Amino acid sequence: MSTTADAAVRNGVDTTVLFGTLDAVKADPSIARFQFRARNRWIDGAHNRTTIRDFYAANQEDESRAEPFHIDAGEPAILLGTDTGPNPAEYLLHALAACLTTSLVYVAAARGVELTEVESTLEGDMDVRGALGLDDDYRNGFDRIRVTFRVAGNAPEEKLRELVERAQQRSAVFDMVTNGVPVAVELMPA
Amino acid sequence: MSTTADAAVRNGVDTTVLFGTLDAVKADPSIARFQFRARNRWIDGAHNRTTIRDFYAANQEDESRAEPFHIDAGEPAILLGTDTGPNPAEYLLHALAACLTTSLVYVAAARGVELTEVESTLEGDMDVRGALGLDDDYRNGFDRIRVTFRVAGNAPEEKLRELVERAQQRSAVFDMVTNGVPVAVELMPA
Repeated sequence: MSTTADAAVRNGVDTTVLFGTLDAVKADPSIARFQFRARNRWIDGAHNRTTIRDFYAANQEDESRAEPFHIDAGEPAILLGTDTGPNPAEYLLHALAACLTTSLVYVAAARGVELTEVESTLEGDMDVRGALGLDDDYRNGFDRIRVTFRVAGNAPEEKLRELVERAQQRSAVFDMVTNGVPVAVELMPA
Repeated sequence: MSTTADAAVRNGVDTTVLFGTLDAVKADPSIARFQFRARNRWIDGAHNRTTIRDFYAANQEDESRAEPFHIDAGEPAILLGTDTGPNPAEYLLHALAACLTTSLVYVAAARGVELTEVESTLEGDMDVRGALGLDDDYRNGFDRIRVTFRVAGNAPEEKLRELVERAQQRSAVFDMVTNGVPVAVELMPA
């Protein structure tokens, strides 16, 4: 393996920084505590907008983002919206796809595999009798989600399969979507 | 209550269509089966992009969206990215906020409550020793999520509180995030 600076960047990930981050967390586990945040505002009907910017990491507020991100949600006509954005369930599929993909790319970088292509398609099945409150035999969300990856890189299929497995074991959103997270909802007087 | 056409639209939701949809699903439950989809493509490093357009609903492919939605994900510098978008865990918070808000707006519309303001802030706590694979005592995802709503409308606080409760009981993403969903991941040869 080459030890030049260029060789340290694999899949767009600087592995020197990656391994340095792992060492830093091992040396001081207190820097591992993160808090991510989102602020959402209703606009009209199914249209609402989330603003994301600051977060807490490594024992301080992270203010490295020059501008906030704005994300619009909506619903299609059949669900009484005007398509002002993907709907919330579709955003959940996006969160899952993005997290599995980034986990895969980072794991591959750490293990010396150069990827040339990562694509995934996700499908979530839902019977809306649940969310509409018409039949308690149906849950509100997806019954199941199917993710199909196409991955190419400089490794045999068996190795790529191992990386996809490892990505599932390390993905934050895969963990949350498959295992669930306690959610506390509070109402403050307006 | 007025019965004019205008009065049927509450919180930007046409309640005539809303109640008509409920009646249609009761009359023919087969139209309640939906499938939502997302397609993601890796670009570089932590940058990947999801495309969302078609879905299945009411016994047919829904092609009402003239254009696809494109959503970019990324990571901040401290997580080895270049801020090409919110990160996947932040998108999960967005999906949850958007779904709770839309559920609240629809439930309020159905129950005759006119809302003037709905805002929410979400926080998710995570120890990244889990996702980094450094310590199995920590999960990959958030330990917990806190959602704080501010809601104003033409109803007493107790009624607004009841609507927020009901929104949790009906939200597709709240169900998925709190209870989990089975996810099957498959690798296709590239």
